[in-house]
Amino acid sequence: MTQLEAARKNIITPEMKRVAEKEKLTQEFVRNEISAGRLIIPANINHLKYRLDPIGIGIGVACKINANIGNSSTTSDVNCELVKLHMAVHYGSDTVMDLSTGGDLDKIREAMIRQSTVPLGTVPIYQALSEVEKVEDLSWKMMRDIIEKQARQGVDYFTIHAGVLKRHVDLTKNRITGIVSRGGAILAQWMLAHNEENFLYAHFDEISEILRAYDVCYSLGDGLRPGCLADASDTAQFAELDTLGELTARAQAMGVQVMVEGPGHIPMDQIVMNVERQQKVCHGAPSYVLGPVVTDIAPGYDHITSAIGATVAGTAGAALLCYVTPAEHLGLPDAEDVRQGVIAYKIAAHASDVARHRPGARERDDQISRERFAFNWERQFALALDPEAAKTKHDSTLPQEGFKDASFCSMCGPKFCAMKITKDGRAIKSSSPSLSSVIPEGVIGDP
Amino acid sequence: MTQLEAARKNIITPEMKRVAEKEKLTQEFVRNEISAGRLIIPANINHLKYRLDPIGIGIGVACKINANIGNSSTTSDVNCELVKLHMAVHYGSDTVMDLSTGGDLDKIREAMIRQSTVPLGTVPIYQALSEVEKVEDLSWKMMRDIIEKQARQGVDYFTIHAGVLKRHVDLTKNRITGIVSRGGAILAQWMLAHNEENFLYAHFDEISEILRAYDVCYSLGDGLRPGCLADASDTAQFAELDTLGELTARAQAMGVQVMVEGPGHIPMDQIVMNVERQQKVCHGAPSYVLGPVVTDIAPGYDHITSAIGATVAGTAGAALLCYVTPAEHLGLPDAEDVRQGVIAYKIAAHASDVARHRPGARERDDQISRERFAFNWERQFALALDPEAAKTKHDSTLPQEGFKDASFCSMCGPKFCAMKITKDGRAIKSSSPSLSSVIPEGVIGDP
Repeated sequence: MTQLEAARKNIITPEMKRVAEKEKLTQEFVRNEISAGRLIIPANINHLKYRLDPIGIGIGVACKINANIGNSSTTSDVNCELVKLHMAVHYGSDTVMDLSTGGDLDKIREAMIRQSTVPLGTVPIYQALSEVEKVEDLSWKMMRDIIEKQARQGVDYFTIHAGVLKRHVDLTKNRITGIVSRGGAILAQWMLAHNEENFLYAHFDEISEILRAYDVCYSLGDGLRPGCLADASDTAQFAELDTLGELTARAQAMGVQVMVEGPGHIPMDQIVMNVERQQKVCHGAPSYVLGPVVTDIAPGYDHITSAIGATVAGTAGAALLCYVTPAEHLGLPDAEDVRQGVIAYKIAAHASDVARHRPGARERDDQISRERFAFNWERQFALALDPEAAKTKHDSTLPQEGFKDASFCSMCGPKFCAMKITKDGRAIKSSSPSLSSVIPEGVIGDP
Repeated sequence: MTQLEAARKNIITPEMKRVAEKEKLTQEFVRNEISAGRLIIPANINHLKYRLDPIGIGIGVACKINANIGNSSTTSDVNCELVKLHMAVHYGSDTVMDLSTGGDLDKIREAMIRQSTVPLGTVPIYQALSEVEKVEDLSWKMMRDIIEKQARQGVDYFTIHAGVLKRHVDLTKNRITGIVSRGGAILAQWMLAHNEENFLYAHFDEISEILRAYDVCYSLGDGLRPGCLADASDTAQFAELDTLGELTARAQAMGVQVMVEGPGHIPMDQIVMNVERQQKVCHGAPSYVLGPVVTDIAPGYDHITSAIGATVAGTAGAALLCYVTPAEHLGLPDAEDVRQGVIAYKIAAHASDVARHRPGARERDDQISRERFAFNWERQFALALDPEAAKTKHDSTLPQEGFKDASFCSMCGPKFCAMKITKDGRAIKSSSPSLSSVIPEGVIGDP
């Protein structure tokens, strides 16, 4: 029984209990959100046998982030990928996707499933393509076997690009960057070569049967997501989205949990509209956005261009933010890129939670702010998203241990620190009661 | 005659012509915006004698960014600061503030004015405090002399914290981080010690006279800006803002150009409200925001936490975005921090311009996207905000020159590149006309 099927039967599973505990929500709330299709718990029955600690993804719980790792044919190996996995989880990634396209894919995936405490996602068509010479050689039969193998292995969610239909492909012809999803491009080429419908769409219910058997979640892929600002929110993108809405309902009807992927490259003024449209078309299924990057002109800094978009998307209700690293558009990320991407997205997800007024979301902000005002440098570092980076930056100018108790840093020095001056001022004030007479009544203190 | 006085007399100055040329706007539009107080050209008559290339700051022109540089008593010297100045201008900062608080302040400022092609701002009260032993020793007379000296020297705009009034100080008493503006904290302590009104407020018209003589712009400082999310949008902040609105009108009436500073630390869901409120209270004077950072928990990464807020602010109409560097809250930025801050804010300002549909804003995005799709790696690097960073990241995995012509990078390798597959697919399609029959009428192509 999948989490969705259990929820519909009013059963509270151990995974629901764990999610309720982590999110500080009632078990009944969690069950009800899952039952409504607004919350998923990606927990393959065969990954639960290892070290998986279940998490929930949905608009009713804290915003989550995903880190994409995995090698390519030109770069990296199993050990490098495990280092990236640990880096991602250490800095707080809630899920990880293994997007490997080179080397022994089964072995890398097996190692990750055994090691990962967070849900692991894959894109099965990558393995399919890696096993044939040309895109045209792909077939439903081999695809089905790979999906079944990876599901049995313990993968928690699959990106399945079933929404890219034959009639959509021509809609991309005037785009500047065409199709930029690997899965979408592969399927488009296959459809063009065979003049047949996308086999993932044609056999969608068969795929759902496999996913249901292991409780693998769908991550319905947006194969036609825009690859630049100019291509955003176009006919192709929204035509596919309508199909994804149809497939969401079909999968949920079969008891399979679903989230839906979203773009990509989107100007600031179109992000909220995109999240809301996706939520509406896909019946409130969790929105899983990639970025979006809000400008195309900053390769090398796309963790920033995309964290900006991701924060807007998270604030608008996106449930899972797929990170982008500084290596985006330029090469395969290394472990340091993974760290930079994860931290940028922890910022995005947390700022979204604060903006959505999630209970308790701002507590850590308030705590670190109190330590900052108290000049407890070590506590401030400890509460930071990346304590080592904060300490290193501080120590780059004032490394001596004595400065860990100083009422200033090298920015202002002892005489110009505003917080120190504020404190000195407060000390003056407590010995100068006459001042209170100048403060008008009714405006003292904050609400 | 200041730019504002000239504009009111229907005079088009050479500086207005230059701004119109750079912004691709009519000279009359520029003149009219200045006349209405919505646009300023910070161009001290004594800086124009050197290398200043005038720029406009206002909602009607492209969003601008400012880089704060300057030493402190613990760190840096003149040469370091000139390196930072060149770094900031090289990567595209539109204005620079010299916030030095240590060493020979006149000499550092003089060097910067002579070297800087962009407007230079200062906070004169820093020099005043550096020349006395204690905050209490400050006086209007010395302050006036310093303002006059710096104006004569050629500074283009001054942060003047004239909006912090005696009655406001107590409104900050329940804040977590008190007063975090250095100027605000200094003036609050001075007022508490003397039980007198802020001398910058008391002598505001005298200051305006000096500024008018050299056409120095006001940057009305937000001395009570929040220093953490918890303190955002509180009574103290908005009480000061009301005073800034009053002062904006007073200064403009005297012919002095004005922009108004804004916070600081603001949750995502309050940023648009803050920009709009400031615009309204201050009669449309250009909004100059510091960040805002959208979470307090990421010291070491505050160029990112704040670029997120700055992009939202810029999209809402902020005219000048003051950068925050990775060193914020931890120490004095070095040259590399300056670079990181500037790039993050070039992203924020540009994404805002695209979101506000400024004519031509998206051209560079479209151009780099075309080069990306064409695999013109060298052109893609050249069009990037930071070409060196883009090339370095690319070359970290595929350094050989041959890969500069490759139809892939190390992310996907030759077989999995979506853009390459798209192109292969298009090649198939052009030899397979039968496919067009499956595309429904009326939905072909983008609008």
